[in-house]
Parts: sequence; C-alpha cells; structure tokens
Amino acid sequence: MFVLMVYDVEVKRVVKVLKIGRKYLNHIQNSVLEGELSPAQYKQLKHEVERAINPEHDSVRFYVLRTTQYMTVDKLGVPSRPGDAEAFL
Amino acid sequence: MFVLMVYDVEVKRVVKVLKIGRKYLNHIQNSVLEGELSPAQYKQLKHEVERAINPEHDSVRFYVLRTTQYMTVDKLGVPSRPGDAEAFL
Repeated sequence: MFVLMVYDVEVKRVVKVLKIGRKYLNHIQNSVLEGELSPAQYKQLKHEVERAINPEHDSVRFYVLRTTQYMTVDKLGVPSRPGDAEAFL
Repeated sequence: MFVLMVYDVEVKRVVKVLKIGRKYLNHIQNSVLEGELSPAQYKQLKHEVERAINPEHDSVRFYVLRTTQYMTVDKLGVPSRPGDAEAFL
C-alpha cells in the first residue's frame, strides 16, 4: 500500500523522526515522506514513530492508500528530493 | 475531488502561500492542507499558488484523489487543527 507521512514535530525530535521515516519511505519534501509498504512495514513504522514523538507536542499523519489508481500528484517549484516516488504512480 | 497540499516555501512566502491555501482548503498541520474541491477550484488554487511562489526555491505538491474510498488517515500525537477534514473520509 502507498503511505504518505507528514510530520510536524519539535525541532529537537526532527532528526529522530526523519531518520525513522527514511528507513521505510522516500524523503520527498521538507516534512513529507512517501513510499510503498507492506502492512507489516507500515505497522512497524507507526510503532517506531509513536515511540519517538512527544504526543503532547508533535503531530504525525499517515495517509494510507490501498491503491494509487485514483491519485495524481502535481508539483510546483523545485524538483522533489532524490527518491521521489514517481515509480509508485 | 480530494486535494492534499503540502508546501515547503521560504519563510517570507509562507504567510502568502498559506493564505491562498486556506481560501480553498482546511489547514490541518504545519504545512499541510486538505479538502474537497471541484476541478475548477483546484485549477484556480494551483494557479494562485504558482504565482505566489518562487519556483527556484519553493516546492508545493498536490495529491489529488478522485475518491477517498481507498484511503485511510492515521494520526499520532496532538489533534489536528480545527477544520480537520474528517468529513471527507
């Protein structure tokens, strides 16, 4: 399944959360990662992120798509970071 | 259609881009907006954002879903901002 992760965490936890995210997903934009994961990988990712954040100050959202068949991505401005998950679309 | 907008723009243009985004979408997380738009509204939003950013320094991505039938959203941490587009799911 396709997973899009967007995070808004305090500066001191950014590196940690990003590091976890990058173990599973491609880093696409400042606080955005995306990629194709198995349900087990997704569960593990969520678990690791949950342990890394402070739930009273940080916010992480996962958009999970069973299929990307009905999705398109439009981009304005500078190209995405390397790893842009074009291949998934 | 459901539109998810994520932006990474230089500080001096954040207010401008956010202001445009909020005319059309709900502000969900730091640099994330989402909502239900008509194709015409979406076109207009993209047009306004395109004019507001510096394409050499800023990056804006729009994930456009024809249906949210195959999407779920999981959240960790603090609740989303008011306007959380639960209603679209």
